[in-house]
Amino acid sequence: MSGCPFSGGPGHRRDGGAPEPAAAAGPPASDGPPAAGDSANRGLSRLGMSRRGLLSLAGAGGAGAVAGLAAGFLGHDAVEAAAALAAAAPPAAPEDIVPFHGDRQAGIVTPAQDRLHIAAFDVVTEDRAELLRLLKDWTAAAAAMTAGRSTGSSGAVDGPYDAPPEDTGETLDLGAGKLTLTFGFGAGLFEKDGKARFGLDGRRPDALIDLPHFPGDDLQPGRTGGDIVVQACADDPQVAVHAIRNLARIGFGQTRVRWSQLGFGRTSSTSRAQTTPRNLFGFKDGTSNLKAEDTALLDEHVWAGPGTRQGEAWMAGGTYLVARRIRMHIEIWDRTSLREQEGLIGRTKGSGAPLSGGAEFTSPNFDITGSGGEPLIPLDAHVRLAHSSRNDGVKMLRRGYNYTDGSDGLGHLDAGLFFIAFVTDPRTHYVPMQLAMAKEDTLALEYLKHTGSGLFAVPPGTAAGGFIGEGLFA
Amino acid sequence: MSGCPFSGGPGHRRDGGAPEPAAAAGPPASDGPPAAGDSANRGLSRLGMSRRGLLSLAGAGGAGAVAGLAAGFLGHDAVEAAAALAAAAPPAAPEDIVPFHGDRQAGIVTPAQDRLHIAAFDVVTEDRAELLRLLKDWTAAAAAMTAGRSTGSSGAVDGPYDAPPEDTGETLDLGAGKLTLTFGFGAGLFEKDGKARFGLDGRRPDALIDLPHFPGDDLQPGRTGGDIVVQACADDPQVAVHAIRNLARIGFGQTRVRWSQLGFGRTSSTSRAQTTPRNLFGFKDGTSNLKAEDTALLDEHVWAGPGTRQGEAWMAGGTYLVARRIRMHIEIWDRTSLREQEGLIGRTKGSGAPLSGGAEFTSPNFDITGSGGEPLIPLDAHVRLAHSSRNDGVKMLRRGYNYTDGSDGLGHLDAGLFFIAFVTDPRTHYVPMQLAMAKEDTLALEYLKHTGSGLFAVPPGTAAGGFIGEGLFA
Repeated sequence: MSGCPFSGGPGHRRDGGAPEPAAAAGPPASDGPPAAGDSANRGLSRLGMSRRGLLSLAGAGGAGAVAGLAAGFLGHDAVEAAAALAAAAPPAAPEDIVPFHGDRQAGIVTPAQDRLHIAAFDVVTEDRAELLRLLKDWTAAAAAMTAGRSTGSSGAVDGPYDAPPEDTGETLDLGAGKLTLTFGFGAGLFEKDGKARFGLDGRRPDALIDLPHFPGDDLQPGRTGGDIVVQACADDPQVAVHAIRNLARIGFGQTRVRWSQLGFGRTSSTSRAQTTPRNLFGFKDGTSNLKAEDTALLDEHVWAGPGTRQGEAWMAGGTYLVARRIRMHIEIWDRTSLREQEGLIGRTKGSGAPLSGGAEFTSPNFDITGSGGEPLIPLDAHVRLAHSSRNDGVKMLRRGYNYTDGSDGLGHLDAGLFFIAFVTDPRTHYVPMQLAMAKEDTLALEYLKHTGSGLFAVPPGTAAGGFIGEGLFA
Repeated sequence: MSGCPFSGGPGHRRDGGAPEPAAAAGPPASDGPPAAGDSANRGLSRLGMSRRGLLSLAGAGGAGAVAGLAAGFLGHDAVEAAAALAAAAPPAAPEDIVPFHGDRQAGIVTPAQDRLHIAAFDVVTEDRAELLRLLKDWTAAAAAMTAGRSTGSSGAVDGPYDAPPEDTGETLDLGAGKLTLTFGFGAGLFEKDGKARFGLDGRRPDALIDLPHFPGDDLQPGRTGGDIVVQACADDPQVAVHAIRNLARIGFGQTRVRWSQLGFGRTSSTSRAQTTPRNLFGFKDGTSNLKAEDTALLDEHVWAGPGTRQGEAWMAGGTYLVARRIRMHIEIWDRTSLREQEGLIGRTKGSGAPLSGGAEFTSPNFDITGSGGEPLIPLDAHVRLAHSSRNDGVKMLRRGYNYTDGSDGLGHLDAGLFFIAFVTDPRTHYVPMQLAMAKEDTLALEYLKHTGSGLFAVPPGTAAGGFIGEGLFA
């Protein structure tokens, strides 16, 4: 009975004379055995189930077997027996799980989930071993969470009872939500203040440049940069927030959250099976985005490594993530005529068809002129300026999200697009286009302001038994 | 042909020799006839369908009838004929619609939707007629949006073509999402700087107090107060954001956004049909919340007006909305032992059962002691201090949401609970409890910080043909 978490009642109390010896509270024991005092947990383990299963039973349909029991007065063998007879909480539905392990990281060509939480971390330790341990802990946690499981060995509610939970718990009743976690390394991981870090001298990829200042940039330091980025995408925002929050928890002492951003609605499709969503200008966005099905184009424009324009072997199967927080001046946009809006975009607002005619996926024809001799797609239309034919043939895989972050203090919503793109090399596939846009694109000049920025080398996927970015540290 | 928006091609251009006379761009014509130049729109109207229907056709399944047509070269009578033969975009599914009109406003006892966007507006006009027109425009827009329709008479894509769209468009392809819009009036609508506004001398309800300063309050002016609040709840966050954004657009010139807050996950159930969600402490929240089914208790604790503790006739069927932005120190919480966490809450983390035993919905027994003589539910447990038996029998209808707003600049996530409660009278149903909590509740003292606040008189519902808050202005 002393092994039962409810036995004697006060065993359930934080300071009330627990019958089992109390272990000292400490950091999450993600890499060690359970705390010595956790006899309660072991008691349940002897019955072949976790406390989580027991409590799920009590909280869900099996409550009849448990309700009315006054803990501290009733023998809990009865509870345990009932619990042992019942099935544990059902695992996450397979169709809600995106596999974590693989040659390439998930969350790139994965059909874009509905919600985003992305965060960039500063690494505050300078100890290579600590960094490697963090990456291994994050790998284990990411594999668990993307499978719909709690982080750590035992989760939020089944101990050790006198240590902090190994998972924060807010997804205990939720599924996997198609969670993907995509990790990338910023320049600051390789060097800071001119000094190499973590023994990574000479390992910074040439393509991992310092992005230039673009005309109109209004970057806030607290929304820019970062040593490691983690993009969490899920169909349930609580699942995405939980993932970032638990990685931050695991990284406490080694990392600090530099910036984080919630995106409430996807603005890109990355699969032909998806419909095209709308951005906060009310227009369909990403119609001509690269899709998972475009494997040859992805090899050319998205994936990095040997045989591509970069030579780093450890980046084979990787890519580069460009993040830009783009504030939209939606109040000005909303006072712009429909004619002007469609001209600035170069597409109709309804169907998203190019102004040169057809339907959404019809290729724009930039040469067609109307009766007045003017091109149907204006010379400064975004679709014209951003088209690959104007940009040395480059394409990108966009994976952005709409955001709203309260008020700007001036009576307006702080809303816009959190732009994310995956490219084979930002020197060829982002910088030239963004330089052109920042100079010529009326949409960018009058309605957009870039307030945050980041560039990250996204390593290839992780094999079972490996860890994130393993190749870089080999 | 001159009535067709595509005719002559350049008719589709913002500055390219449109064959129809261009109307001057102006504010949304929500209260007037279509702009005189909008012959294009009228042309489609003659065919008995909107451009929206036409473009939906082109963008959705009927694309085959339209694809390949090069606008500017083909006669568009063909397009129009095809469009006229097809059904317009399907209306929102009835099960996704929460009725807007009624004796009481929706969004209070409506089963809590998954996502929140709430905003408080400052009214910057001092003109009563302008305020009334705004409330009428907002009423029309709210009725439309909650039914899954665009705001205004014609929406985002069917003109007038030379005026700003009457809807911003980002929900064109989305359903109603169970959207509810709940309006409330702050003290600042009645008086400002000691002077009555809008002829509302003496109309401010006694219950619409200035909330006192609570111990530990760290209220930011930019997150506090406001003359009018609008709570938008929906199962799709883009639907909720769109609603607030369009009300802000309609109110331009009369209102400014004072604060706005996105909530990504509900933390309350307001119907027995719902499961209890979890807050960012990982615990089930709102287990003992009032529910829609508790009609007698709602009459006693939530609804205001004659026969209740307030006497204002125009508030009959109304209530008071208390909003508190509560930052959670999740990083400290996450380093607290499971035992301590459960003791602070007074419930188990898994099932949410009170520590006195039973299952989630078992009433807590505050008298039971364990073998050590200590109460199983600690003396400072939140569930004990917040219980109605300790608070003069008061109950409230909570309707809060988890939030995450990026980083706090100190390496942490800015995350917590956006607390919303509906009560019959904040003087009896919120202030005493919050004063007690702020002094005695260890959870509040060590893990919470209130950073924003608002109190609003929520008038009763709107009848068809009426407008929001009509009784106040009678």
